[in-house]
Amino acid sequence: MKKHIIVQKFGGSSVANVDRIKTVAKRIFETKTKNNNVVVVVSALGDTTDELEELAFNITKNPSEREMDMLMSTGEQISCALLAMAVKELGHDAISFTGNQVGIKTDSSHTKARIETICGKRIKAALKQNKIVIVAGFQGVSDEDEITTLGRGGSDLTAVALAVALKANVCEIFTDVKGIYTTDPRVVKQARKIQNITFDEMLEMASLGAQVMQARSIEVAKRFNIPIHVRSSFSKEEGTMIVKKDEKLEEISVRGVTSNKKESKITICSVPDQPGIAAQIFTEISKSGANVDIIVQNVSHTKLTDISFTIPTSDFNKALDATTKIAKKIRAGEILTDKNISRISIVGSGMRSHHGIAAKMFQALAKNKINIDMISTSEISISCIIDQKQTDEAVKILHKAFQLDKI
Amino acid sequence: MKKHIIVQKFGGSSVANVDRIKTVAKRIFETKTKNNNVVVVVSALGDTTDELEELAFNITKNPSEREMDMLMSTGEQISCALLAMAVKELGHDAISFTGNQVGIKTDSSHTKARIETICGKRIKAALKQNKIVIVAGFQGVSDEDEITTLGRGGSDLTAVALAVALKANVCEIFTDVKGIYTTDPRVVKQARKIQNITFDEMLEMASLGAQVMQARSIEVAKRFNIPIHVRSSFSKEEGTMIVKKDEKLEEISVRGVTSNKKESKITICSVPDQPGIAAQIFTEISKSGANVDIIVQNVSHTKLTDISFTIPTSDFNKALDATTKIAKKIRAGEILTDKNISRISIVGSGMRSHHGIAAKMFQALAKNKINIDMISTSEISISCIIDQKQTDEAVKILHKAFQLDKI
Repeated sequence: MKKHIIVQKFGGSSVANVDRIKTVAKRIFETKTKNNNVVVVVSALGDTTDELEELAFNITKNPSEREMDMLMSTGEQISCALLAMAVKELGHDAISFTGNQVGIKTDSSHTKARIETICGKRIKAALKQNKIVIVAGFQGVSDEDEITTLGRGGSDLTAVALAVALKANVCEIFTDVKGIYTTDPRVVKQARKIQNITFDEMLEMASLGAQVMQARSIEVAKRFNIPIHVRSSFSKEEGTMIVKKDEKLEEISVRGVTSNKKESKITICSVPDQPGIAAQIFTEISKSGANVDIIVQNVSHTKLTDISFTIPTSDFNKALDATTKIAKKIRAGEILTDKNISRISIVGSGMRSHHGIAAKMFQALAKNKINIDMISTSEISISCIIDQKQTDEAVKILHKAFQLDKI
Repeated sequence: MKKHIIVQKFGGSSVANVDRIKTVAKRIFETKTKNNNVVVVVSALGDTTDELEELAFNITKNPSEREMDMLMSTGEQISCALLAMAVKELGHDAISFTGNQVGIKTDSSHTKARIETICGKRIKAALKQNKIVIVAGFQGVSDEDEITTLGRGGSDLTAVALAVALKANVCEIFTDVKGIYTTDPRVVKQARKIQNITFDEMLEMASLGAQVMQARSIEVAKRFNIPIHVRSSFSKEEGTMIVKKDEKLEEISVRGVTSNKKESKITICSVPDQPGIAAQIFTEISKSGANVDIIVQNVSHTKLTDISFTIPTSDFNKALDATTKIAKKIRAGEILTDKNISRISIVGSGMRSHHGIAAKMFQALAKNKINIDMISTSEISISCIIDQKQTDEAVKILHKAFQLDKI
């Protein structure tokens, strides 16, 4: 029987101390003994990344990105060497590699590099020697032989990209939760672990507030059709499979509920209703670097209209500056702002073929006196902007209305 | 005027924290502004090396040397990135490099690799762009693209080897003492800093107990005639120049006094006085891995003789095991041991041409009732084994007898 190739990724909390490193080593060892080829990707130990960052910022407020990559990449080099030692201690041969050593070639955008190619020759050779291979996550090397890092969620990306390069059967992402949930279990105690979810649904959930995996890695997995298994480092239980298509897809119209409290709203009143005005406004705001999310413009019967939009609260100040500037230029009226909003969303590929999902969502909210301020829809999600105080209540209502506690 | 190339090496205590890193950066910056090309070699921050080692030994008692190199090399990568940031913060362009990036090619002896070649292309290119270059000490890369480390004193070796490769004018070793002293200033308060010392004298002093620099780096500097300047990180004062030949060499017969309390003595009594017996004994002891230092065999008038030798106390147990074994085999008599000995030595190239130095040493000790147990001489040094309790007293006596407080 041809051996399976399994890529396993362990995050920083899974290797936060010596005991956890030993536990992870056992887990890897068990996977290996089931006649698999195992390639492991590991993040930096617990707080290492924060500690290194603090050192840098104590030296300069504005560290060179090239030197930051030189510095930060050591975190993963440390953890992969220690993990290799721990596996060898269990009696199985293992070898650690830096991103450079396995030929993870990236562009030169330091601190946020993009993977271009993966050679993987050394990994294949080590697997042939029956070794467990442990690769430093989050890092690569540019054509100029500079060490680069991949930015937030970089170790997930390393894992998925290696799975692609090695034609792995599955990429397992080990984390401190048991999988993807129908909604945040800290908010709704009836939240259920989802067994299967499609790449598209997962992408939508990630962009709407679910924080388990970055959209970037899921996009790569989707493109190359690498199944991802999100599961717990601390339990043997199966987690959530992220796959191309779920066999039961037709039956489930809503897969999960997400919420995001970190949005703010800006409204420009009395905008002259002329062609090209919206383009002018949002060009200016985009130049400021703020990411506009939902935009609502009411159909107007006069020559003036109101335009509202939401942005991440972290972009609020720059968005407001840009808005003030452009509003003056186009002779619009007052500017209203609201930081006390939330976005709640339902996500599910089944929506495409099921009618009445939106109506059901709005009714459930209305029945519970939750006012909807703005609405935004995609092919597989519906989002509403509501009063921030009602966020958790709204999540509970929707979770129940779509019977997510019963899947 | 052609720019000088200066290689500066800073040890772990010089970069123990953020403030010291900033101080070192200023020092480097000042050297650069004097129209020099500056290449800096840096050790790991203060205790980093110990901390990483502890992590490894908490995971396994017997870590793979290959993985240890992977782990330990991160210490210097961290400090060189931070130092580059600190220099840039002062307004001068700087760039850090790993051993791999500057092509420090070594053999594959992990944890104690030997440098084979240095490419230095990237360093020269960076110097041409007027950058201050900062290189991670202690590390290299093997032909198999494995990270290697150079063992104890490795960063000194990196500095000297880079000085050779770049044809530097001088290699400055910054440390926490002001230079090489006529003897240990903690023992003799009249100890003087030596202005100039030859490579041979320094090698002899290093092997006889002076701990400022490892013999390994001095040997390389001697071979390629790279002057070394040993000086303090915390003071602007000139330190000690280690050079091929001191102009004033003829006048000074004794350059310094060293002592070493970490030696032990083993005596085999009643050894049959036959040709080949000594060879048999010391072959056995050398096989045990113990480094024999001084050997004394008395001329015998009977058919039996006593053989005494000293070894580092750290080798005592294995040397005693081997001795017991061989003594039995050759039917020798009793074995006596003494851990309470010391070696005191005087070192100086001038000895070659000055008569009576040994006599003067023995007289000074005798006058002060210090009994000499064994004697060993080289071309430029004389060592005596004495009672350990009298070590410091003996050092003081010799320091005064040879007027080292008056140079």
